[in-house]
Amino acid sequence: MTDTPLAIGIDFGGTTIKIGVLFRSNLIDSAPPIATQDFDGPDSLIEAMARVIHELRERHPGIAAIGVGMPGFVDFENGIVHNLTNVRGWVEIPLKKRLFEITQLPTVVENDANCMAYAEWKRGAGRGLKHLIAITMGTGVGGGLIVNGQMVRGARYGAGEIGQTSIDYQGRIGAYGNRGALEDYVGNNEIAADARNAYEAQGIYKNISDCSPAALATAATNGDPIAMQVWDDVARKLATTVMNGCWLLNPEAIVIGGGVAKAGDLLFAPLQKHLFAQLSGPFKDHLSILPARFGSEAGMVGAATLALEEAGHVI
Amino acid sequence: MTDTPLAIGIDFGGTTIKIGVLFRSNLIDSAPPIATQDFDGPDSLIEAMARVIHELRERHPGIAAIGVGMPGFVDFENGIVHNLTNVRGWVEIPLKKRLFEITQLPTVVENDANCMAYAEWKRGAGRGLKHLIAITMGTGVGGGLIVNGQMVRGARYGAGEIGQTSIDYQGRIGAYGNRGALEDYVGNNEIAADARNAYEAQGIYKNISDCSPAALATAATNGDPIAMQVWDDVARKLATTVMNGCWLLNPEAIVIGGGVAKAGDLLFAPLQKHLFAQLSGPFKDHLSILPARFGSEAGMVGAATLALEEAGHVI
Repeated sequence: MTDTPLAIGIDFGGTTIKIGVLFRSNLIDSAPPIATQDFDGPDSLIEAMARVIHELRERHPGIAAIGVGMPGFVDFENGIVHNLTNVRGWVEIPLKKRLFEITQLPTVVENDANCMAYAEWKRGAGRGLKHLIAITMGTGVGGGLIVNGQMVRGARYGAGEIGQTSIDYQGRIGAYGNRGALEDYVGNNEIAADARNAYEAQGIYKNISDCSPAALATAATNGDPIAMQVWDDVARKLATTVMNGCWLLNPEAIVIGGGVAKAGDLLFAPLQKHLFAQLSGPFKDHLSILPARFGSEAGMVGAATLALEEAGHVI
Repeated sequence: MTDTPLAIGIDFGGTTIKIGVLFRSNLIDSAPPIATQDFDGPDSLIEAMARVIHELRERHPGIAAIGVGMPGFVDFENGIVHNLTNVRGWVEIPLKKRLFEITQLPTVVENDANCMAYAEWKRGAGRGLKHLIAITMGTGVGGGLIVNGQMVRGARYGAGEIGQTSIDYQGRIGAYGNRGALEDYVGNNEIAADARNAYEAQGIYKNISDCSPAALATAATNGDPIAMQVWDDVARKLATTVMNGCWLLNPEAIVIGGGVAKAGDLLFAPLQKHLFAQLSGPFKDHLSILPARFGSEAGMVGAATLALEEAGHVI
C-alpha cells in the first residue's frame, strides 16, 4: 500500500483565493493569497491560479491532484461552476477542464461547504461516520451531508444548503424567495444586528462592530447577560434546523464549524439543550454534537482530500 | 432470469392489520383484516398473523418472503419493533425473528412510511429515481427518503420523519417536545380544525366532520372560497417542509400520497406555486411534484417488494 501523495487544495473565496499544498490534513506549504477582485474575469484569474499551482509544483514535485472549493453552485461531475454571485464573469465556467488542460493533473471542483464537510468526514471530527451533518457558520451558513457513508450531492449537485432551509414559514423573504431561511437569522451580520437591538432595548447603545460574534463571545464569557441571551437565541434557531436534519436523516453526529462556532460552549451548550428537548430517543441517544476540527483551512483540506480520493489514491 | 415470486405484504395499523399476497404491485389475494385492538398483546397478535399467513400460503404455495410495515420505530436490520404508542405491549418485540421462526420465510420489518416510500420508488410514481422524497399525509404525516439510489434509514433507522420537522421555531410544542412540527399543522384533524375556525370567522358554523379534508375538497371543487383558502394554507405549510427537503437533498421528485393528497390539484397546484417561489434554479428546474401511485395498498406493496429485494429475488 502506497502512502498518500501530496495534493493542492484551493479555497476560492469572494475576497481571496487560498492555495495550499496538503499532506493528509497538514498544510505543508502555501502561496500568498490571490485577491479575487483584482481580476476582471475568469480567464485572467484561472491563469493566476495556474501560475501559483506551477510554483508550488516546482517546490513539491509529488503533487498528484488538485481540488478546488467554490463559493457557489458547481456541477461536481463535470466541474462546471454555474454562477458566482460575488465574482464577475463566473457563469458556466468549466473550471475542472481548464485547470486540467493547463496542469494535466486530475482536478475536482466542488462547492466550498461540501469541501468543509468532506474535510471533517475524512480527516476531522466526523471521521469514519456513515451519517453526518456538517454545518459551517460565518457570514453565510452552509453545510454538507453524509448519508449511508456517501456525500449527498443530489440530482443537480445542489444538496446541503442548510442555511437556506426555513425555520419559520411566515418569516421574511430571503435571497432565493425562501421565507425564514436559517442564514437570515444566524449569519454573522444578523447575529450582530440582533445583539445591537437587544442592547438597545436595555438602553445600551453599541456600534455594530462591538456586536460581532467574537465580541459577543468575549462579553458572554465575562458574564454579560444580554450577550448570553443572544447566544441562547442563536442556539435555539440553529437547533430547529439541526432538529429537522435529525428527524430527516437520523445522523450519528452534527459537526459545526466556521467563525460563529468559535464561541464554543456558549453556542454548543444551549444548542444541545434546545435540540435534545425536541428529539425522541432513537434520534438523540447516540447523537454527538461536535465542534469542527478544522478552521480556515477546512476548505483546502477537504478539496485536496476529495481530489485524491476521486483520482483513486489512498487518502 | 427468473420471474418475480409472490410475497406477503402486511400493513400493521393501530386499528386493523391488512395482509395481502402481492405479485409485483398487484394485490392478488388478501385476508379479512385483523382487528388490532382485539388482542391483548404481541404473542396472541403474532399468532393471529401467522394463522393468516398460513392460510394464504396454502392458497399460494409460491410465496417467497414476508414484509411487514409497522406504525412506529423499527430496528430494520434486526427486525425489532421498538415501541408502538397505540398498541399495548409492543415494546422491543423481535417481530422478524418471531415470524421467521413460525413461517421459515425470509421476513423484513420496516417502518410503514418507509414502506410507502419504497413502493413509490420501486413500483410507483418515483420508479427509477435516485433522489426522491416521499410524503404520506393522513392523520399523521410520514415520509421516506431515497438518496444516491438508496433508502435512507440513518444511524438508528429513524430517518424520514418528515412530519416531525418544524416549520416554525416558535410554534407550539408537539408530541416529542418539537416545536412547530408539520404534522401539527397539516394532519387530518388539524386541517379540519383550521377549516372550522375559518368558517366560524365568517359566521358559518360547521361540525368538525363537515370539515374533513374530503369534505373540504368537495367544497373547494364547488368553488367555496373558504375551502380553497384552507387548501392554499395547507399547501403553503407543506411547501416549507418540502422546500427544506429540496435545499437539503436536491431531489428529482417529491411524491405525495395518503388521504389528504386525494385533494389532487387543490393541494398540488398551490404547493407547486409556494414551493417554486422559494427555490433557486438548480433545485426546481428539474423537480417534479407527483401524486403517489398507490393508495391504501401502498404499505403492503412496499413491504412485500422490500421483502423480496432483501431476500435476493428479482423484483
